[in-house]
Amino acid sequence: MANSFGSLFRISTWGESHGGGVGVVVDGCPPRLPLSEADIQPDLDRRRPGQSRIVTPRKEGDRVQILSGVFNGKTLGTPIAMWVKNEDARSEAYSEMKDKFRPSHADYTYFAKFGIRAWPGGGRSSARETIGRVAAGAIAKKILRTKFGVEVLAYVKQVQRLMADVDPERVKFKQIESNIVRCPDSAMAEKMIRLIEKTRKQGDTVGGIVEGVARGVPPGWGEPVFDRLEADLGKAMLSLPASKAFEIGSGFGGILLTGRQHNDAFRARRGKVITTSNYSGGIQGGISNGQTIYFRVAFKPVATVMHKQDTVNEGFHNTTITGRGRHDPCVLPRAVPMVEAMTALVLVDHALRHKAQCG
Amino acid sequence: MANSFGSLFRISTWGESHGGGVGVVVDGCPPRLPLSEADIQPDLDRRRPGQSRIVTPRKEGDRVQILSGVFNGKTLGTPIAMWVKNEDARSEAYSEMKDKFRPSHADYTYFAKFGIRAWPGGGRSSARETIGRVAAGAIAKKILRTKFGVEVLAYVKQVQRLMADVDPERVKFKQIESNIVRCPDSAMAEKMIRLIEKTRKQGDTVGGIVEGVARGVPPGWGEPVFDRLEADLGKAMLSLPASKAFEIGSGFGGILLTGRQHNDAFRARRGKVITTSNYSGGIQGGISNGQTIYFRVAFKPVATVMHKQDTVNEGFHNTTITGRGRHDPCVLPRAVPMVEAMTALVLVDHALRHKAQCG
Amino acid sequence: MANSFGSLFRISTWGESHGGGVGVVVDGCPPRLPLSEADIQPDLDRRRPGQSRIVTPRKEGDRVQILSGVFNGKTLGTPIAMWVKNEDARSEAYSEMKDKFRPSHADYTYFAKFGIRAWPGGGRSSARETIGRVAAGAIAKKILRTKFGVEVLAYVKQVQRLMADVDPERVKFKQIESNIVRCPDSAMAEKMIRLIEKTRKQGDTVGGIVEGVARGVPPGWGEPVFDRLEADLGKAMLSLPASKAFEIGSGFGGILLTGRQHNDAFRARRGKVITTSNYSGGIQGGISNGQTIYFRVAFKPVATVMHKQDTVNEGFHNTTITGRGRHDPCVLPRAVPMVEAMTALVLVDHALRHKAQCG
Amino acid sequence: MANSFGSLFRISTWGESHGGGVGVVVDGCPPRLPLSEADIQPDLDRRRPGQSRIVTPRKEGDRVQILSGVFNGKTLGTPIAMWVKNEDARSEAYSEMKDKFRPSHADYTYFAKFGIRAWPGGGRSSARETIGRVAAGAIAKKILRTKFGVEVLAYVKQVQRLMADVDPERVKFKQIESNIVRCPDSAMAEKMIRLIEKTRKQGDTVGGIVEGVARGVPPGWGEPVFDRLEADLGKAMLSLPASKAFEIGSGFGGILLTGRQHNDAFRARRGKVITTSNYSGGIQGGISNGQTIYFRVAFKPVATVMHKQDTVNEGFHNTTITGRGRHDPCVLPRAVPMVEAMTALVLVDHALRHKAQCG
Repeated sequence: MANSFGSLFRISTWGESHGGGVGVVVDGCPPRLPLSEADIQPDLDRRRPGQSRIVTPRKEGDRVQILSGVFNGKTLGTPIAMWVKNEDARSEAYSEMKDKFRPSHADYTYFAKFGIRAWPGGGRSSARETIGRVAAGAIAKKILRTKFGVEVLAYVKQVQRLMADVDPERVKFKQIESNIVRCPDSAMAEKMIRLIEKTRKQGDTVGGIVEGVARGVPPGWGEPVFDRLEADLGKAMLSLPASKAFEIGSGFGGILLTGRQHNDAFRARRGKVITTSNYSGGIQGGISNGQTIYFRVAFKPVATVMHKQDTVNEGFHNTTITGRGRHDPCVLPRAVPMVEAMTALVLVDHALRHKAQCG
Repeated sequence: MANSFGSLFRISTWGESHGGGVGVVVDGCPPRLPLSEADIQPDLDRRRPGQSRIVTPRKEGDRVQILSGVFNGKTLGTPIAMWVKNEDARSEAYSEMKDKFRPSHADYTYFAKFGIRAWPGGGRSSARETIGRVAAGAIAKKILRTKFGVEVLAYVKQVQRLMADVDPERVKFKQIESNIVRCPDSAMAEKMIRLIEKTRKQGDTVGGIVEGVARGVPPGWGEPVFDRLEADLGKAMLSLPASKAFEIGSGFGGILLTGRQHNDAFRARRGKVITTSNYSGGIQGGISNGQTIYFRVAFKPVATVMHKQDTVNEGFHNTTITGRGRHDPCVLPRAVPMVEAMTALVLVDHALRHKAQCG
Repeated sequence: MANSFGSLFRISTWGESHGGGVGVVVDGCPPRLPLSEADIQPDLDRRRPGQSRIVTPRKEGDRVQILSGVFNGKTLGTPIAMWVKNEDARSEAYSEMKDKFRPSHADYTYFAKFGIRAWPGGGRSSARETIGRVAAGAIAKKILRTKFGVEVLAYVKQVQRLMADVDPERVKFKQIESNIVRCPDSAMAEKMIRLIEKTRKQGDTVGGIVEGVARGVPPGWGEPVFDRLEADLGKAMLSLPASKAFEIGSGFGGILLTGRQHNDAFRARRGKVITTSNYSGGIQGGISNGQTIYFRVAFKPVATVMHKQDTVNEGFHNTTITGRGRHDPCVLPRAVPMVEAMTALVLVDHALRHKAQCG
Repeated sequence: MANSFGSLFRISTWGESHGGGVGVVVDGCPPRLPLSEADIQPDLDRRRPGQSRIVTPRKEGDRVQILSGVFNGKTLGTPIAMWVKNEDARSEAYSEMKDKFRPSHADYTYFAKFGIRAWPGGGRSSARETIGRVAAGAIAKKILRTKFGVEVLAYVKQVQRLMADVDPERVKFKQIESNIVRCPDSAMAEKMIRLIEKTRKQGDTVGGIVEGVARGVPPGWGEPVFDRLEADLGKAMLSLPASKAFEIGSGFGGILLTGRQHNDAFRARRGKVITTSNYSGGIQGGISNGQTIYFRVAFKPVATVMHKQDTVNEGFHNTTITGRGRHDPCVLPRAVPMVEAMTALVLVDHALRHKAQCG
């Protein structure tokens, strides 16, 4: 079950970096939804390596193929299997990894757990695994958009110390996609791009923050107690490679306010309940309150750097390792579609759960 | 399933603030573990209201009763049902809540979801629900300690702007329990207590950060992809009432470093692999690496304040509400055993999962 | 998870024969359903020992108490915890069981699995565990009846060689409850009662068949592939103590027909699709087709007999054991409410699943 | 989740009869198990259409391809994705099915549930779905054989009225595979084959019984209460296409005996506990007792017959339909590997669950 996510809209991903490809099976999709590869590919293209000069140059077309669950252009209600072949699988580029553990990668922990690891490209721990998530997330986003009027967006909020000024209530997809770093604050985006380029030239990497937004979620999605909407969103984000932190609404900053300052007052407006502030981030007691949901995810700097570093080998002897070949200076632009996908997967799952019990 | 947590060591909690009590069923506990109420009660006492002058004064003995799953002082491997009666259930103290939604509480969202709510004391959304978690967590901690040599601790790291200086590698349970705020930095603890008392007198509340630590976790616990150890810890913490943020290892702060600075170099030491720094927080690729696991959880200031606030009623008309009666100025001291409990529940579950697949 | 059943309407039972009682937690019940103990108790009374001269004489009132999930007479959508105390817990009656394994009971296998067992009354393997199922099933039946117009019934079809003549399409609850063996064929019921009484006098036991019926299930409940409606019904029935076999529709007898004979022809009738025969038992491809669902469950003769039998003790030495005390000559009359309960639990779960994906 | 089976050794199948193929993802396989397509293909060949003159003549090579989870000939502990392309996908042969529901097939119920159906070849309800199960089952059998010394077998026990004489304790794989009907009683096998051939010439079909056997299962596998070993086996078998009944041990026949006759006496033999009879079928209280597990599954006669039958169309008007093209007179020889696969999947799952809690 480690490789599945969701309860009613459930995805199971499979695949290693250098095997026969990567894929996903989506179980629980409502029937009769119009669907084709054209709904999926755009998000995969946003996730794809080699899409710009500030991301990893690995050459992958990442063309998705739907193998089941769709008939005459519509979903059947049966599992939707999707598959992307691995193309640029140059194992030799990783030969040093065969015997050595890359620092702050998963090489050592996979070996400690399983006693075996697919060393080329990091195997299952490669970010290629997220292809299946992004493909499934594209379906989830389509369901949210067409059946529930919910819009899911994400964008780069911060690169190292460079923080963008973005209004989660108003930001548009077009603004996000208007530059290669996927930051809707175009002045800051330029600075971010320059920082990433400079870092790449130094053979180093930078991290930052992606902000996720869901607008139009009706009141009532989410569950009391364990499967709170923010808990499931948090798990979803922390399951993404390189993520280290998650905060919703006021987050860590909220602790600087007192209760009086932090509370979101309710007001009635045209027969609906709104709040006059949104420190809650659109969720109270684990359940959506109808306001915009927004949260932030921290991604650490990519672990592969073009420098010699101390490490150990499989025999547990001290050695060094030097990053070579493809160099991904910043994961953030490609993390944006991943955050969107995981957000949409969580929301669709809760939409269906809400319908089951309370619909 | 919204009220269950864990896959192999699975707990299901039940109960409302003012009903017949609160409880938990623990399924999957290994057999032949010595167990009695004496193993559980101390942690419930640490979670109990009325334990000190800086927490809510509600009068609850919170005496736990084991109803099943234990025979002649040992676990049977069958479900362990535990029950705590509600005693101080003065619904009248909440009569204003009957028709009005308290700001930043779950009153409105429960009503929006279910079309009904147990208004006395917040019903299911009350922190009394965590009694079941803490009781189950006490069992999990005992399993970790006796079967795996793993120690789980938590403590108050920060209250509003007051931040303690604590070394997660060395902090001791005794230090944590040496003061009523549960902060092992005794100088800072005094300041925290003064701040909380001052805030209470103002009818206001403060939030802060609890840090959680797990020492002695062997390499190999956790799963690739979705059920990463940090993802499950994050979900566990974000499922606690009033939590708004989670970060592991370097967390949000890690984005200020470059990859070269942030990587944890591996070294061999006496046949084992260690890291010379621990920005990873003891987890890499979702799997423990043998180093100390540490993370921080932000808890917002408690929403009940002794002041008049804007809100709406069940008929969706504007009104005001004024907090009365019991006033909990700071949830942090009582959140400490909750964080420990959830940490232990996640770790035991992964310990059993590891044994199943790789043992 | 071994002690939970269902995915969206999920029950978790707990308790041993001679511990603090037995209970159940029901998670996922729709909110605002009118509910009180008066909805539950009648089915528990049908399951209760001592209800007639042909069942076990153990003295248990089996009074159910709802501890949570209901407020002002309506369900909250939160977990419903129910509890029944054990009263007639005379461990001494079982003292021979302390060291010896009763043949064809679960004493040995529990010991082999867990290395410990609650020997009084069989502990967790006692049929008292089904109290929780029957209590939860009463809620499920109420949901089916009031929200979906579905009626669930069960009755004794056969005792040893005595087979009743019953029409599943027309049998009424009143007919079933008109005699103590719960067989709606009153002439055959008398013979069954005489057989059971005779068997009891001989210190022996008999088994037989309970037939379960669900009328009014709309087309479309159930799932393709693994969670077929008949597969989930089969699992539900085979999870009942003493059950050894399950067949739906034509069952084992259907293999004597050819395909031409066995096929159920479709016909249109007033805008609906019906079948002119019902060898399928109301389910095709795992999904209900709108016809009456009917199936049979075989219960073996109760293992406790009032005679000396060969067995071994916990030290694995040969010995003998003689049944004493309470003697249950036939489980069938009490199995009827259990079969109803499990049927209703399966159907409600699939009703909610259908609503989630296809509603 | 409808398309997944198992908790710790979990399979998810996907695919329709005439789409891009069928496949399975296996999650939870222990690492470092030697594995290649050569371990899988033989069982797929036993399931394959066109393998003999008494099964469906559809031409499918059913060549399996492992896409992930195996590296250098060993399992990684990550998901194993397997894929079989559809080859003989002549939709035109099914054109009459486009608008009409075949009697006693799943055409109508899928349409009622989903409002859409992949009519060519029955889509998801085709027996091609079982390819994924058989492929996964081959891995499960290898784990059982190499890690636990457990042997799983199945064979045709009965075709219509023709019943074979087979000893579950001694039957060998070679005997089963010695004829095309997979019945180890060679004299009866000849009669069965003649009956099936005669039936095929009449354009009709026959059903029968497959018996499943597991030898060498140690005491202690299985769970109390809901996930009893026989309950999970029953669900597994009743999830196979065309199955209508399941019985374990004495099954329906056991009700003709009294408790005294039916009880399996325990005896000590060389430090182990055995039973002198095995009416229990190797399972007591849901847990294996170390004796041979055996059970029977009834498969109805295949629904596709070469005759005109009454039915309705998608507009719910009366019409007729006539089976054409491929004709499968008897599913039993191909059901044998399916029964083996599902048995092995249940047993491996319980083996891992046992290890997790009690290991």
